[in-house]
Amino acid sequence: MGNADYVYPSTNEYRQCAHPVAVPPPQPFFKSFKNSLKETFFPDDPLRQFKNKTPSRKFFLGLQYFLPILEWGPRYTFQFLKSDLISGITIASLAIPQGISYAKLANLPPILGLYSSFIPPLIYAMMGSSRDLAVGTVAVASLLIGSMLGDEVNATENPALYLHLAFTATFFAGLLQASLGLLRLGFIVDFLSHATIVGFMGGAATVVILQQLKGILGLQHFTQSTDIISVLRSVFSQIHEWRWESGVLGAVFLFFLLLSRYFSKKRPKFFWISAMAPLTTVILGSLLVYLTHAEKHGVDVIGNLKKGLNPPSFGDFVFTSPYLTTAVKTGMITGIIALAEGIAVGRSFAMFKHYSIDGNKEMVAIGTMNIVGSCFSCYLTTGPFSRSAVNFNAGCKTAMSNVVMAIAVMFTLLFLTPLFHYTPLVVLSAIIISAMLGLIDYEAAIHLWKVDKFDFVVCMGAYIGVVFASVEVGLVIAVAISVLRLLLFVARPKTFVLGNLPNSTIYRSVEQYPTTNDVPGILILQIDAPIYFANSSYLRERISRWIDEEEDKLKSTGETSLQYVIFNMSAVGNIDTSGISMLEEVKKITDRRGLKLVLANPGAEVMKKLNKSKFIETIGKEWIYLTVGEAVEACNYKLHTCKPDATNEDSQPWNNV
Amino acid sequence: MGNADYVYPSTNEYRQCAHPVAVPPPQPFFKSFKNSLKETFFPDDPLRQFKNKTPSRKFFLGLQYFLPILEWGPRYTFQFLKSDLISGITIASLAIPQGISYAKLANLPPILGLYSSFIPPLIYAMMGSSRDLAVGTVAVASLLIGSMLGDEVNATENPALYLHLAFTATFFAGLLQASLGLLRLGFIVDFLSHATIVGFMGGAATVVILQQLKGILGLQHFTQSTDIISVLRSVFSQIHEWRWESGVLGAVFLFFLLLSRYFSKKRPKFFWISAMAPLTTVILGSLLVYLTHAEKHGVDVIGNLKKGLNPPSFGDFVFTSPYLTTAVKTGMITGIIALAEGIAVGRSFAMFKHYSIDGNKEMVAIGTMNIVGSCFSCYLTTGPFSRSAVNFNAGCKTAMSNVVMAIAVMFTLLFLTPLFHYTPLVVLSAIIISAMLGLIDYEAAIHLWKVDKFDFVVCMGAYIGVVFASVEVGLVIAVAISVLRLLLFVARPKTFVLGNLPNSTIYRSVEQYPTTNDVPGILILQIDAPIYFANSSYLRERISRWIDEEEDKLKSTGETSLQYVIFNMSAVGNIDTSGISMLEEVKKITDRRGLKLVLANPGAEVMKKLNKSKFIETIGKEWIYLTVGEAVEACNYKLHTCKPDATNEDSQPWNNV
Repeated sequence: MGNADYVYPSTNEYRQCAHPVAVPPPQPFFKSFKNSLKETFFPDDPLRQFKNKTPSRKFFLGLQYFLPILEWGPRYTFQFLKSDLISGITIASLAIPQGISYAKLANLPPILGLYSSFIPPLIYAMMGSSRDLAVGTVAVASLLIGSMLGDEVNATENPALYLHLAFTATFFAGLLQASLGLLRLGFIVDFLSHATIVGFMGGAATVVILQQLKGILGLQHFTQSTDIISVLRSVFSQIHEWRWESGVLGAVFLFFLLLSRYFSKKRPKFFWISAMAPLTTVILGSLLVYLTHAEKHGVDVIGNLKKGLNPPSFGDFVFTSPYLTTAVKTGMITGIIALAEGIAVGRSFAMFKHYSIDGNKEMVAIGTMNIVGSCFSCYLTTGPFSRSAVNFNAGCKTAMSNVVMAIAVMFTLLFLTPLFHYTPLVVLSAIIISAMLGLIDYEAAIHLWKVDKFDFVVCMGAYIGVVFASVEVGLVIAVAISVLRLLLFVARPKTFVLGNLPNSTIYRSVEQYPTTNDVPGILILQIDAPIYFANSSYLRERISRWIDEEEDKLKSTGETSLQYVIFNMSAVGNIDTSGISMLEEVKKITDRRGLKLVLANPGAEVMKKLNKSKFIETIGKEWIYLTVGEAVEACNYKLHTCKPDATNEDSQPWNNV
Repeated sequence: MGNADYVYPSTNEYRQCAHPVAVPPPQPFFKSFKNSLKETFFPDDPLRQFKNKTPSRKFFLGLQYFLPILEWGPRYTFQFLKSDLISGITIASLAIPQGISYAKLANLPPILGLYSSFIPPLIYAMMGSSRDLAVGTVAVASLLIGSMLGDEVNATENPALYLHLAFTATFFAGLLQASLGLLRLGFIVDFLSHATIVGFMGGAATVVILQQLKGILGLQHFTQSTDIISVLRSVFSQIHEWRWESGVLGAVFLFFLLLSRYFSKKRPKFFWISAMAPLTTVILGSLLVYLTHAEKHGVDVIGNLKKGLNPPSFGDFVFTSPYLTTAVKTGMITGIIALAEGIAVGRSFAMFKHYSIDGNKEMVAIGTMNIVGSCFSCYLTTGPFSRSAVNFNAGCKTAMSNVVMAIAVMFTLLFLTPLFHYTPLVVLSAIIISAMLGLIDYEAAIHLWKVDKFDFVVCMGAYIGVVFASVEVGLVIAVAISVLRLLLFVARPKTFVLGNLPNSTIYRSVEQYPTTNDVPGILILQIDAPIYFANSSYLRERISRWIDEEEDKLKSTGETSLQYVIFNMSAVGNIDTSGISMLEEVKKITDRRGLKLVLANPGAEVMKKLNKSKFIETIGKEWIYLTVGEAVEACNYKLHTCKPDATNEDSQPWNNV
């Protein structure tokens, strides 16, 4: 659009050589609506690769989109297989004890932990776009399932209903995850900020460790609550019930696990030591119990595990009234949290290996594996950080390592379950504690404190909420504080005075660049956020105060009185009708004080709306400049040739603001 | 802070003459914390006038702050009194019939409408800072009280309890309003945007008009619901019950009221015709009924009104269990809505007369008048638009007109209540309908559609929610959409490519300024929002796509390949740790593609955090420029003298993003 059709109502010699500010060419409503929908839901432009392709090619590309195995499968080599075999077996050795431990955490039969490491990894191998994610159950989601379902149904009194509720919740979690992906609503996960996740994970790990005191101390009765106060009260009120055999065994194994982890961390080449350690402790522990018959002296063991593959469970879903709500609620919350962990983990390792994963595609994959899993006696799975890290370190090349793990677990289910009969629960507790300690990332919290205090508050909000109240409360606190921050950014935007950098036409914040000079008679303000209903009242007050303060300052030093107020609109990304009303009010205020209001560099959206609402005519086209420099030059030109014209009748000073 | 201590690690001849970007001087944590608290809660700096004053003067100023009458009282003149007398009597003539009508709307005894126009205006006259606000009950809040309390207690079956609940709700409303003001949380009201209020008022007016069908048609039974479907079903299911006498009377009076309003609108000098019209219709209607004994032929009348001033009611508050929740909830919602109306009305008229009112002070005043009112048989009052507009038009000078109105109402209560015995209810309905029609501001809705589609959606959301569901639902919908918009602004920030304005060093959006030229080998992107957790994933995707598209474009035209990516950070008001991680990832992506990442004009907050998180060292201080122009010049200098240095080992092109 040329701007030749601009007519300048006042003859302003300087203005002629300044750059005009363009109102962007008008766009049909539906085109701009379509554009903004696309930016909101398809920022990655997934249809880009389908352009200019034949229909059959398009179909194949579409299939590849949902089943990435079709993409990497044909390129799969024997070299890859060798790497994937090693890493698959390594993660299986971790998956079996962890699976059993986490199932206990959810108050579910231990065998479910094995079932859940069989079907879902197979689905993910076909549909997932991450090469490093190792699928399995996770501690936090297991704990949440345990506490949320436990509020409704007692797992020991009514185990069948509890189990069926767990499948139903998993089904809904999967449904939610897949729908989020299909509806391209993946950005909901973005609202769990990095700080939230650090605090949340740390808090959840603390809670999970506290829960293990039951196993380590061999307690029979334990509180249903997860908050630190209830748990510690429960532990210390039954000091006489503590079993020293169990405690000693737990301490020894925990020490061994931590030592192996420390060693592997120091020498990354020996990552397999820490990866194999859990299975080793399980074998050692089981042997010890078997040989000493410690199960008769206060050391609880897993007991019988049923042989055989996953039985179908789609007939067990509970869709009846009082339980459906609980199942849906549990599914929603655990589903979102599991999704966030899976995607964050996938993304982290993709960064390391320089490939990228598609969040929405991942959601569909994780969702599908949970839907299918819930039909075959699996509970909620995702990509746990610990297992994926081991997978990555073991040198996995593709999702095939998940298939290897699934096959190893299948063998275990078919032939090896009796071996776990004598596995002591205390070993499982030690395994969980050792895994959880790695999740309490106090260094990240310190980093947050250093870089961004607000993020630190979010992180501590999540941590304290989880530890002292419950997992859900912690999550709600953290998300609420994070969202409050976004709202506060808009509701209380920064405004600051600009000054002239010496020997230039550049104008910058006086606070950031203390070498800048004031421009006599001109107040230059920058508004650092969109002007919306949430901040228009504030901005009106704040701008009035800036003007007051500037006039007071000028009065006290006896300098030239204020004549112009320039708003630098560079950072004002958008404006709504409340914002335009605010500008109109400010215009009236400045008029009444005999000041001239000047705008510098309003953006496309702002110009469009100022134009439609006729504010451009109110302020006068000739008072809108492309840069602050040009605005100042024009004002200076006027200031030294004539007084600014008083446009309204009563230009007496107005003392009531 | 001088920037002389900057050391530029790479010898870059151009860089020497460019302006360095300053990291703002470090501030002690508590100082910056105190500053941001002050900006959040005291943007108007209310303590400014107390500076450098003697203690006794400070005390008097403080008293004046809470009782503005001490400020304008001593300056009060006989001229003012004359104007205030006229306007006070005018609004009293409106207040009496309106008060009775709105009390009926809330299912409260009609006399409460008169009580509520006696005590609260006296309090407001002392404490309020608006000169034009006329205090009284409002239709929307009355309707809300009726529907919310009606859900808990039936007004006809248990009138005493219902009445006491209304006082309790008013008490809590006042408490909330005053606390918001004292705690400086007035900005909560800002979240009711202009668009929300337009839609909400229109919807509430529609609902109130629908409710009047009961009175106009003389129906005995009527639905408790307020949604349009229930009401119309209720009306049309009892066609045989319609009373034509009542209907004709209502239509005639409504026509008369609308005619007077139309006339006054055309000739503002005759504003008093429309102001007096309600009282005239009441007198005419009462006379008519008295003479024809129409009360025996299907025209319902008000009946007996108790003579005498407000009886005390502070002993009637209900603080017992099942009702307390309802009272608190009703008080909160109606309190917020009444507050928003009162403040918006006060602000509008202050704009007209060129003075300003203090939102927090107004809240304390409105809250106090409701607390005191609830102790003396008044229900929720605020500054209704209709009455305040009449007050303004009648030429009121100060809040004294409220005192005049209160005295007039006092006389009515003491001596004139028997005159209202024969007033037909249908006249009250006609008065309400005529007042409500003015609140359906379809022109404002059209304006919203023209200027800002999103605001229009908010407005229609509020309207449809109120009309088809309930007042609360409409409010929640509108606020939710408004807040969603703020979040969406941050979650999906605009990013756009900048080009060079011909013959200048100015770089602006290619879309807004189609005359700009591309800079060969350099992609300049502007990010138009703070970089927060909510948008960091999106921005990473979007930036990758911009780079992809630019490279595709360059490939297809065979131009110079891309070498530099410049981010214009002028509009990035803040950044959090997630945002910094995103920048680090983008830096890795660009490195891998053999591109150089350059930042232009990061603000104070951003520089502070980039510095603390060591990102400045990652990117290199010499790649941060003060303006886009300087950044481009430096890149061009490098581009034409040497290739950009590949800083990482594997600089092979990377095709997986």
